[in-house]
Amino acid sequence: MSERADGASLEEIVARFGGKLVGDGSHRVVQVATLDQAGEDQIAFLSNPKYRKQLATTRAGAVILSASAAPDCPCPYIVSDNPYAYFARVADMLNPSIRHDSGIHPSAVVLPDLPTTVHVGALAFIDAEASVGADSIIGPGCIIGRGVRIGAGALLHSRVTVYPGCVIGRQAIVHSGAVIGADGFGMAREGDGSWTKIPQIGRVVIGDNVEIGANTTIDRGALGDSVIEDGVKLDNQIQIGHNVRIGAHTAMAGCVGVAGSARIGRRCTVGGGAIILGHIEIADDVNISAATLVTKSIAEPGTYTGAMPFEPHREWARNAARLRHLEDMADRIRVLEARLARLEKKP
Amino acid sequence: MSERADGASLEEIVARFGGKLVGDGSHRVVQVATLDQAGEDQIAFLSNPKYRKQLATTRAGAVILSASAAPDCPCPYIVSDNPYAYFARVADMLNPSIRHDSGIHPSAVVLPDLPTTVHVGALAFIDAEASVGADSIIGPGCIIGRGVRIGAGALLHSRVTVYPGCVIGRQAIVHSGAVIGADGFGMAREGDGSWTKIPQIGRVVIGDNVEIGANTTIDRGALGDSVIEDGVKLDNQIQIGHNVRIGAHTAMAGCVGVAGSARIGRRCTVGGGAIILGHIEIADDVNISAATLVTKSIAEPGTYTGAMPFEPHREWARNAARLRHLEDMADRIRVLEARLARLEKKP
Amino acid sequence: MSERADGASLEEIVARFGGKLVGDGSHRVVQVATLDQAGEDQIAFLSNPKYRKQLATTRAGAVILSASAAPDCPCPYIVSDNPYAYFARVADMLNPSIRHDSGIHPSAVVLPDLPTTVHVGALAFIDAEASVGADSIIGPGCIIGRGVRIGAGALLHSRVTVYPGCVIGRQAIVHSGAVIGADGFGMAREGDGSWTKIPQIGRVVIGDNVEIGANTTIDRGALGDSVIEDGVKLDNQIQIGHNVRIGAHTAMAGCVGVAGSARIGRRCTVGGGAIILGHIEIADDVNISAATLVTKSIAEPGTYTGAMPFEPHREWARNAARLRHLEDMADRIRVLEARLARLEKKP
Repeated sequence: MSERADGASLEEIVARFGGKLVGDGSHRVVQVATLDQAGEDQIAFLSNPKYRKQLATTRAGAVILSASAAPDCPCPYIVSDNPYAYFARVADMLNPSIRHDSGIHPSAVVLPDLPTTVHVGALAFIDAEASVGADSIIGPGCIIGRGVRIGAGALLHSRVTVYPGCVIGRQAIVHSGAVIGADGFGMAREGDGSWTKIPQIGRVVIGDNVEIGANTTIDRGALGDSVIEDGVKLDNQIQIGHNVRIGAHTAMAGCVGVAGSARIGRRCTVGGGAIILGHIEIADDVNISAATLVTKSIAEPGTYTGAMPFEPHREWARNAARLRHLEDMADRIRVLEARLARLEKKP
Repeated sequence: MSERADGASLEEIVARFGGKLVGDGSHRVVQVATLDQAGEDQIAFLSNPKYRKQLATTRAGAVILSASAAPDCPCPYIVSDNPYAYFARVADMLNPSIRHDSGIHPSAVVLPDLPTTVHVGALAFIDAEASVGADSIIGPGCIIGRGVRIGAGALLHSRVTVYPGCVIGRQAIVHSGAVIGADGFGMAREGDGSWTKIPQIGRVVIGDNVEIGANTTIDRGALGDSVIEDGVKLDNQIQIGHNVRIGAHTAMAGCVGVAGSARIGRRCTVGGGAIILGHIEIADDVNISAATLVTKSIAEPGTYTGAMPFEPHREWARNAARLRHLEDMADRIRVLEARLARLEKKP
Repeated sequence: MSERADGASLEEIVARFGGKLVGDGSHRVVQVATLDQAGEDQIAFLSNPKYRKQLATTRAGAVILSASAAPDCPCPYIVSDNPYAYFARVADMLNPSIRHDSGIHPSAVVLPDLPTTVHVGALAFIDAEASVGADSIIGPGCIIGRGVRIGAGALLHSRVTVYPGCVIGRQAIVHSGAVIGADGFGMAREGDGSWTKIPQIGRVVIGDNVEIGANTTIDRGALGDSVIEDGVKLDNQIQIGHNVRIGAHTAMAGCVGVAGSARIGRRCTVGGGAIILGHIEIADDVNISAATLVTKSIAEPGTYTGAMPFEPHREWARNAARLRHLEDMADRIRVLEARLARLEKKP
């Protein structure tokens, strides 16, 4: 993105995004910043209460905040029910995407005809029968397989691979190193312990407004498709197995692994490093905490956690040794209870 | 892969793969499918007993199953001791690999002479002194380093990197984004806390019939080689450290990490997200469960597990707090036992 | 690297790196090796006491060791306080980096002027306004974004991506598939559960002498920069979130994830597969064990651990079931204590 040179006045901002403006509407801001670092020509926001004490001393040109924080604000402000989302929209307004000239770099190898508004970067390869929607950007070094379909307004950063036949929706953003549509891990075990590969004949089908992080991998279906619904956001280095379905607007942090045929609901969040086993179902609106291993289906919304707490190593070692003897501890408690009961019955 | 247009008759299938056919051998199938989705011109399989109830209502043209399930089958069937492996072979027969025309794309940069049957995709680079076996496919955007040796019939999908001097066996499949032969993480610590790099002068040597997933990384040896034996199957985003040896036909699911100099036996399986520490040995036929941390050698075959069970967050928080006090709980049990013994001795 | 054809005499080695030499200083060694595998023309080292018993039978031409081990050494040796670091320096001397001819491969697309001593590999792309310091190597297939600055003597292996505006210091080594500067995972949640992207307008700024492993990803800052200080060493497949700061000489093993805005001190070590949550601070000289989830700040140096011990699956299953009832076990102990106290008070 690049900064919008002339910025915007507070009046322009509320005209576009709503909210109640208090203060000089003609004041111009050119960039967003944090409360403690913003200057006169920048706009900050207050969302997390723990930063509220920074409000009194901010030198921001304006602040986006909720009604309850307004009394403390020393400068012009915009009141919003959701200051963070409002801030996101203002940040986007002030930092428009860099315009790429449309056209195909002479070093790219592009076999199909593309709309004239598409930009293809240096040394990219687009195979036969692929289609790319209007205004899309295919970054340098991307490899787009035969028959792939990419929607309008998509942005593939450099070095993205899309295997043959996969589908990416409109306004998708895919970061560098992502691999869409590699074979799922499908093999049958022979009697001698060796493995016979099962051809992976499904596709990956990705909806609209999906963002996929750097070096994330999404495998094609074995039979049938792997499906990423609209608005899903995947961070970096996530692995999605074959025939997984991820519901709309679910977001996953980095390093998550989802095994084959798992079905994850809508509006879920999955913390970094969590592992979700295969063939399970997770309901809508479930939050999985970081580093949690999900071993069975979850039918109810809510937050689920499974990580071992960390400690100084010496204390951990003592407690971890006990962990192997919980069954024994439970037995000893049972025996104590029985013995005590006998004793209590004595006259 | 691409569907074989005319499919195969059931007679042709059993002539090729064996098994007992019951029903009309002239019936043709063109594709594989699941029991619940297969139609008249598709062949399904029944392996997992939990899908047995789908057998009675399947509309498949034929089913591959074990003898015990045969009585319930409403359509022609093939009896096999290992229906899933049989299915894999039929799926492969019906979905032959796409034929790439041999030859080097004009945009590729290829320094050595290659057999005429090799296909090199667009914008690939093959450095001097590398060799590629007959009938191999080097996908678009691959970078093959100096002196690399790749066996016959290998398939490197797009954007694979092989560092100089590494060796890949015959019939290997390597997926996009994989990096074979980067430096191992070898450094010596200086007195001031800084690190001095140790040159990594070994190679990666990969056997025949190995499959390596997307964005998986296998480091070259520090001294001596990292070795992946025949028939090993690695899923996506696996990290294999320097001087690791993985025994034949071992399979690892996504996101596994194996630290340097670990030696893993034959026919092992490692679940997703497991971490195996360095310098340990794991026997043949060991199964490591998902998300397990393996901290010491395993000498006996069997299944090993170490993950913390997940729970609704509130319950987890209560139990996790207790985890830090197991030593204390054990002490209190010991004290109770002593006090109770004293009391029991009283007349 | 490539072996130095004529090797070095032991005299040359101590002249360059210090240490006390005992034995024939004119003896030449051409390569480093382990104690058990070294031959007459190789030099080995002894650092880990568990290999001391190999010393008596080594056939190495010389050994680097500490004073205490010297009496057992059957061959010439060099005494050092830190044999492993000394070995690293000798290994580096005997295995100098391969010299790349400077110049730009004709298939590369390079928009800015570069120093004549820079090497740019085949099919690399360097966008406008980027700068590359003297003697740097940009490997085949790298994508260097607009305005990137790379210091002198840097080595980018093949297929590295650096997003626009990021900075990499001198003598950096970056391995294949690494992605520097992709967007951080910053989104605001709307009332309907959908996400609005927050433009990520910061950079990644990487110091001198940093090494970054294969397929590692470091996200650009949201506001302000993500900072990797001098001498940091990152292994493969690490994910660093936006606005993270990693202190000088900290080293992280493979598969680590660090969430946004975490601040990690100097000279820390982080074991493989550990996950560090966002917005926390870790002091200097902290060691995090493998697979540990760090959920809160750590103010004191030391080693911290949080992994669940692994066991044969059946024993794990019994103990894991108990884990869900620790609170209940604690309650029962409390009750036993109360009942026992009552009983003990009885006359």
